[in-house]
Amino acid sequence: MRILVTNDDGISAPGLWDLVRAVQPLGEVVVSAPDRDRSGVGAGLTLHDPLRIQTYASPVDGVIAHAVDGTPGDAAIMGIHEISDGPLDVVVSGFNSGNNLSVDVVLSGTVGAAWHGYTNGINSIAFSVHHVSEAGSPLIADLVKAAVVAVSSGGDGEAALLNVNFPLLDERNCRIEHHDHSMSDGRFVDVVETELAPRLMADRIVMEHRVNRTMFWNARESVWRPGDPLPEESDMGAMLARRVSVTPLDRLLAGGASYSATGEVIDAMLAVLRR
Amino acid sequence: MRILVTNDDGISAPGLWDLVRAVQPLGEVVVSAPDRDRSGVGAGLTLHDPLRIQTYASPVDGVIAHAVDGTPGDAAIMGIHEISDGPLDVVVSGFNSGNNLSVDVVLSGTVGAAWHGYTNGINSIAFSVHHVSEAGSPLIADLVKAAVVAVSSGGDGEAALLNVNFPLLDERNCRIEHHDHSMSDGRFVDVVETELAPRLMADRIVMEHRVNRTMFWNARESVWRPGDPLPEESDMGAMLARRVSVTPLDRLLAGGASYSATGEVIDAMLAVLRR
Amino acid sequence: MRILVTNDDGISAPGLWDLVRAVQPLGEVVVSAPDRDRSGVGAGLTLHDPLRIQTYASPVDGVIAHAVDGTPGDAAIMGIHEISDGPLDVVVSGFNSGNNLSVDVVLSGTVGAAWHGYTNGINSIAFSVHHVSEAGSPLIADLVKAAVVAVSSGGDGEAALLNVNFPLLDERNCRIEHHDHSMSDGRFVDVVETELAPRLMADRIVMEHRVNRTMFWNARESVWRPGDPLPEESDMGAMLARRVSVTPLDRLLAGGASYSATGEVIDAMLAVLRR
Amino acid sequence: MRILVTNDDGISAPGLWDLVRAVQPLGEVVVSAPDRDRSGVGAGLTLHDPLRIQTYASPVDGVIAHAVDGTPGDAAIMGIHEISDGPLDVVVSGFNSGNNLSVDVVLSGTVGAAWHGYTNGINSIAFSVHHVSEAGSPLIADLVKAAVVAVSSGGDGEAALLNVNFPLLDERNCRIEHHDHSMSDGRFVDVVETELAPRLMADRIVMEHRVNRTMFWNARESVWRPGDPLPEESDMGAMLARRVSVTPLDRLLAGGASYSATGEVIDAMLAVLRR
Repeated sequence: MRILVTNDDGISAPGLWDLVRAVQPLGEVVVSAPDRDRSGVGAGLTLHDPLRIQTYASPVDGVIAHAVDGTPGDAAIMGIHEISDGPLDVVVSGFNSGNNLSVDVVLSGTVGAAWHGYTNGINSIAFSVHHVSEAGSPLIADLVKAAVVAVSSGGDGEAALLNVNFPLLDERNCRIEHHDHSMSDGRFVDVVETELAPRLMADRIVMEHRVNRTMFWNARESVWRPGDPLPEESDMGAMLARRVSVTPLDRLLAGGASYSATGEVIDAMLAVLRR
Repeated sequence: MRILVTNDDGISAPGLWDLVRAVQPLGEVVVSAPDRDRSGVGAGLTLHDPLRIQTYASPVDGVIAHAVDGTPGDAAIMGIHEISDGPLDVVVSGFNSGNNLSVDVVLSGTVGAAWHGYTNGINSIAFSVHHVSEAGSPLIADLVKAAVVAVSSGGDGEAALLNVNFPLLDERNCRIEHHDHSMSDGRFVDVVETELAPRLMADRIVMEHRVNRTMFWNARESVWRPGDPLPEESDMGAMLARRVSVTPLDRLLAGGASYSATGEVIDAMLAVLRR
Repeated sequence: MRILVTNDDGISAPGLWDLVRAVQPLGEVVVSAPDRDRSGVGAGLTLHDPLRIQTYASPVDGVIAHAVDGTPGDAAIMGIHEISDGPLDVVVSGFNSGNNLSVDVVLSGTVGAAWHGYTNGINSIAFSVHHVSEAGSPLIADLVKAAVVAVSSGGDGEAALLNVNFPLLDERNCRIEHHDHSMSDGRFVDVVETELAPRLMADRIVMEHRVNRTMFWNARESVWRPGDPLPEESDMGAMLARRVSVTPLDRLLAGGASYSATGEVIDAMLAVLRR
Repeated sequence: MRILVTNDDGISAPGLWDLVRAVQPLGEVVVSAPDRDRSGVGAGLTLHDPLRIQTYASPVDGVIAHAVDGTPGDAAIMGIHEISDGPLDVVVSGFNSGNNLSVDVVLSGTVGAAWHGYTNGINSIAFSVHHVSEAGSPLIADLVKAAVVAVSSGGDGEAALLNVNFPLLDERNCRIEHHDHSMSDGRFVDVVETELAPRLMADRIVMEHRVNRTMFWNARESVWRPGDPLPEESDMGAMLARRVSVTPLDRLLAGGASYSATGEVIDAMLAVLRR
């Protein structure tokens, strides 16, 4: 199996290399990631400027890595068309540091990179963890392996595009204010198929004066509060209930093949949880 | 009525000002657009750097314009939260120079700006013309006015997000190779609700050596050829048949309210065509 | 006479258009400036990415203006090689908002643009005012005209590169903390040839946490205090004494021809002061 | 001794790590370099946006490395103010891939980084090799060590700013068209103090159409041809004659202290050549 690994917060981000280590036992790994943090750029591409690549000193033996001076989508496309020695079986993007939920996945470079793997005909999965420190978890690594093997063999020929979110494992890593995660005990409850939750974040512009210049920041913030209702199959609800969520994003197109791939991926990950 | 006008190819692009002139008779117009061409950036936002704005010498009297050093989405958000004097009724984004069709709307800054108007609770429409020279067409201006009035009064309270594509008017402006548009006669056949066509474009990486450096370009190209099948309700099919297409994009969320807004917008535009 | 006008803080900066109005009576004016604020970029050029230009709606009749998606140096070079109809007599860069003094002219995009006019064989002058509100002063406009005419006819054939700083006119616009400018009376004392003062500024890195990310700002600050000694012919000293200063920057090269141009420019400006 | 190493073409450039290996025997090495290629940016700084740093997996044991999302000057300043554990003795910038000669050092990020080390009161040297493959040369490494030790102990207290160019060692690496370097034999003839040569390069704007957009490249080219005269002490002349050249750049300021530092650096390097 040949796997392309990419991410959104840059080739030196530890979460990228945790994902590399997670998939490395499955076959040949190629890394093509942005040279620096490109969060918030979503599925954007660089179409009117040239792209450049540089080799990168991989901290993991046996893995060739390239940094791309572009977006996560550019990095995925360069990995597919220029860097990989041969056809890829899977594109994995992550680990995103923090869950990528709700309609704001449109902003996620992690999901954006996976989008471009998918539109290039390759099964693609975006992986997010609740807190960056959990990206090295052996349980999460096993779930990743199961998902990758399942998506490569599952489905009906059309590429799948899945957004996988791992809830937190250790309650001390909880990132949701006022949410009681005291039940966290290092395990996930189960694995479910989900839909994007309605909008959870709001834009908020803050003015700042610095060096006698005026600038503005978008201090986006959560408008969801614990206790607010959520649709039953929402990715956010699953995360709060400590369920691994798998959101098939190719449903945007009629007849997206992830219907079968999603089921096989979920079954494979459940098998890991039940060991 | 208060209308925010934005775009993706920058505040000095003629298509932006064609759209401003089209909506100006409807009420107060505020322009907030990127300071330069930001095509390909989709719905990305600048979340980790400051944003800056500068006033811009508007070529249209009575319109205040600001250039934002950011993405189309940033420009929309700044227009909504910082620049507008009061609540906005509609966000219009365009005119995009060339149709924005198929799943590649995820790359479109024109659609991206409208996305952020929508997520901020404002009815938003992205408008694309087949060829930039047709952006000043009086027929298109009338259709835009009808759509804007209808979306502001239609629907059921939830914001709508619509992607409107105008086919070509003059066959000499046809941008599709090998497609016979000889029937174009300066009119549109009708107005229909559509879905995103499956993927029409493919990435293609081209290597270039310049000044003894190697760089790469993504020379994306169409993989659809005239005669290839298209789903019946696709936006691409409508464009080829010279039907104005209205694609409701908020269907990504369960219960998106554009169902009713879409119908009213289509009816209003059909009324214009039948005059 | 054909004059190229450029600047560093972008084509919509009012100071640029004050300079355009100041030189317009002298002949044909071409404007080529960065599309946005590029302060701090010095004489840098974009050598590994393409440059793009867009026409700009000039607020001054009879002047063609282009915005360049690049540095001030790129804008000057594009103006010279691509935009101007014919050979240029002078490149003027400004008005910089605040004096450009001391060895920190290496950071100044205003001086950087002039540098590239000079290296392309054209007499070039960078103009800075003490406070942006004084850029429209009729006295400063007359001094600019005198300098431009003198540099075009003076010297010995080799191009000149001059950095001109206008002190403040109105003491209420004083930007130097604790400096007594109570003698300012709307006039300049005289015009002198100067050298770059030793370093007046120091870098200072400030850490900031925002959205659980750490970032750093260079909060550069003045380390010169009123009363600190300055070399007699320093540009800073002249500015404090309300003398217009002309610093020939081409002295960096052996035999720089500005020796004679500087003298003629100073004489011409003195003649204006003595009217 | 504590040494900061930086460069202009990014933290993953091999020439940077050749320089790190060259100086490592002298003491503690800190690396702070741009995260990607920033050639052409000269001494520019990022003054209106935040800077970010990321640790980098150093290929050389015992060396802490940070990538800075900014210019070479930003990287030097961050290294000095934020990253280094204690006061620095020297800032070395390089190896630049290709000689940095003539007045175009104003464009060089390698020289720009050294400039900002110097303005922060630290002895700084920019090192360029004729061809990147020679950056690992043991002879060049020894010359670098000698220069660094000499500049740290030499001079009269004021910081020095030196631009050092190593000519080619192997004639097959000659980058000058039509120049006869057949005498190259793996040695340098001597070490001399030099001045910046007059301008050797010219700007040339080339138009390109791509994806129905027009863009422009500055295809800067050499206007010096072998045989053209050069001032006797020019850095370019020394390079052609296979003399290591040391150009003191702090002579821009009256009384620059490099007069004595330059002499001691040259003597120390000559001692290496004569072993």
